[in-house]
Amino acid sequence: MTTSTASTSDTTSTQFNPSEWVIDSNGKSALSIRIKGDRIFKEESPFQTVEVFDTYDRGKMLTIDRMVMCTESDEANYHEMIVHVPMFANSGIKDVLVIGAGDGGTIRELVRHPGIERVTMVEIDEVVVRASKQFLPTISSALEHPKLNLLIDDGIKFVKEAKENSYDLVIIDSSDPVGPSEGLFTQSFYEDVFRCLRSHGTVAIQSESPLFHPDAFVDLNKCLKQVFGVDSVHPYLVFIPMYPSGMWSLTYCSKQGNHPVNNCDREKAAQFTLEHNLRYYNPDIHQAAFALPGYIQKMIQV
Amino acid sequence: MTTSTASTSDTTSTQFNPSEWVIDSNGKSALSIRIKGDRIFKEESPFQTVEVFDTYDRGKMLTIDRMVMCTESDEANYHEMIVHVPMFANSGIKDVLVIGAGDGGTIRELVRHPGIERVTMVEIDEVVVRASKQFLPTISSALEHPKLNLLIDDGIKFVKEAKENSYDLVIIDSSDPVGPSEGLFTQSFYEDVFRCLRSHGTVAIQSESPLFHPDAFVDLNKCLKQVFGVDSVHPYLVFIPMYPSGMWSLTYCSKQGNHPVNNCDREKAAQFTLEHNLRYYNPDIHQAAFALPGYIQKMIQV
Repeated sequence: MTTSTASTSDTTSTQFNPSEWVIDSNGKSALSIRIKGDRIFKEESPFQTVEVFDTYDRGKMLTIDRMVMCTESDEANYHEMIVHVPMFANSGIKDVLVIGAGDGGTIRELVRHPGIERVTMVEIDEVVVRASKQFLPTISSALEHPKLNLLIDDGIKFVKEAKENSYDLVIIDSSDPVGPSEGLFTQSFYEDVFRCLRSHGTVAIQSESPLFHPDAFVDLNKCLKQVFGVDSVHPYLVFIPMYPSGMWSLTYCSKQGNHPVNNCDREKAAQFTLEHNLRYYNPDIHQAAFALPGYIQKMIQV
Repeated sequence: MTTSTASTSDTTSTQFNPSEWVIDSNGKSALSIRIKGDRIFKEESPFQTVEVFDTYDRGKMLTIDRMVMCTESDEANYHEMIVHVPMFANSGIKDVLVIGAGDGGTIRELVRHPGIERVTMVEIDEVVVRASKQFLPTISSALEHPKLNLLIDDGIKFVKEAKENSYDLVIIDSSDPVGPSEGLFTQSFYEDVFRCLRSHGTVAIQSESPLFHPDAFVDLNKCLKQVFGVDSVHPYLVFIPMYPSGMWSLTYCSKQGNHPVNNCDREKAAQFTLEHNLRYYNPDIHQAAFALPGYIQKMIQV
């Protein structure tokens, strides 16, 4: 059941052949996912290397610069939680702006909400969109949806130029803060996001792993508290086995301090969960995700 | 920040040298932890290979047959949750039986509760106890505690021969169901556990990862429902980054159906959390842990 190897080769060592695996590592620990057959897709975009692989137990997998972006088996955990948490903590959301989200999973979850009238998606790299449309149809299924306005553009520039009070919800569905996503982790970016939100507006953000990227998690939390106010920034945790450590954070911020748990419409959320046969999200998970272990509370204490 | 490699060697491939890592793998995905320097300890016991390593960001690490048992940085998540959840869901716990737990972390958490009068610990492998005492002092610190009766013996035989109505709480803190722990995942074992519990008794069990060991998780859940009744078996989830997938389950069962959340003494739990400066457990986490994603609920539907 278990293959293993370590600094002193001995009888328990068996073959772990790195060439058969995608290894997402920070040099201290690593998540490895075994690849089935040959790589399905590779293209060097102006921004990054986009690849698609098949795996043994995660379905198809999209990587950017060899960091796992999503796998068919686990993407729902992430996409359901970044969308349905803000959607059920707020009512009357009609205009949504999404930055990133090239694989389309976030859009698929958004358009399940009939109240949403317009989704503007700004993805910098058309290669990610193309690869997802071609090889990840269950994730990218809504990228042609009539309510979607998909722009291939720089999200940082877009929010800087966006009109104020334009959106009820902004979702930052970015990759890690290296390469093109780096600017999505800065205060000036979130000041622009704040400005283009309507007065009751909310943001949901991919805010990294408290364990695998502790500095990014802590720095982003500080930055968001500067922009939204200390009491309006609520990190929440999701089990995402496709990402290293399995513990990933999203962060909910609201312009008027609308609380993500106290304001959750549990009954509506329960109906929706059932109706759409959701894989991960449900009203109990919505509440549970905001419970933070003591050591993570301490990381972001002000 | 990210090293990677995959089935077609190319420019993004960099060095992942398996000889520097402990790799806990099921052949499809793997968690790897990088080793610092030489192995600290290795002994082949009659049951298994016990080793201790130093790591770059997890502190010291204990492995059995190269499966990660615990790391200094993450052990509290597991040990606090397997002990304090049943302790605060029940009052008047005096006699505790622990099967396994050779590293001592579970005992360290138990003896923090002044109400406990006697802890009987049955660990089959004295090598695990010796290695932990010598190299993991912060985890094994309570293994000499006056309330502890530590027996090196077969836990399966022990519960078979134990008097009925002897314990208020039984904790099954076992390794994976291979080797000596295999018998800890059988119905006859849990029938014996049930028998030696007092009428108000409770069990907390290491019940594997729903993702990394789905069959073990599902089979054990079925078996526990046979013994304790469908409504008295409550799996809960803990973020354990030292285990593959990061999502691990523990299971709470009670002989009289005492509910783990409804019966939690939140106020007492909050005081205790503060007093002992717990790393992971708190009353919100206690409740949150029992919220299960839809796809895990479906795995164990009856």
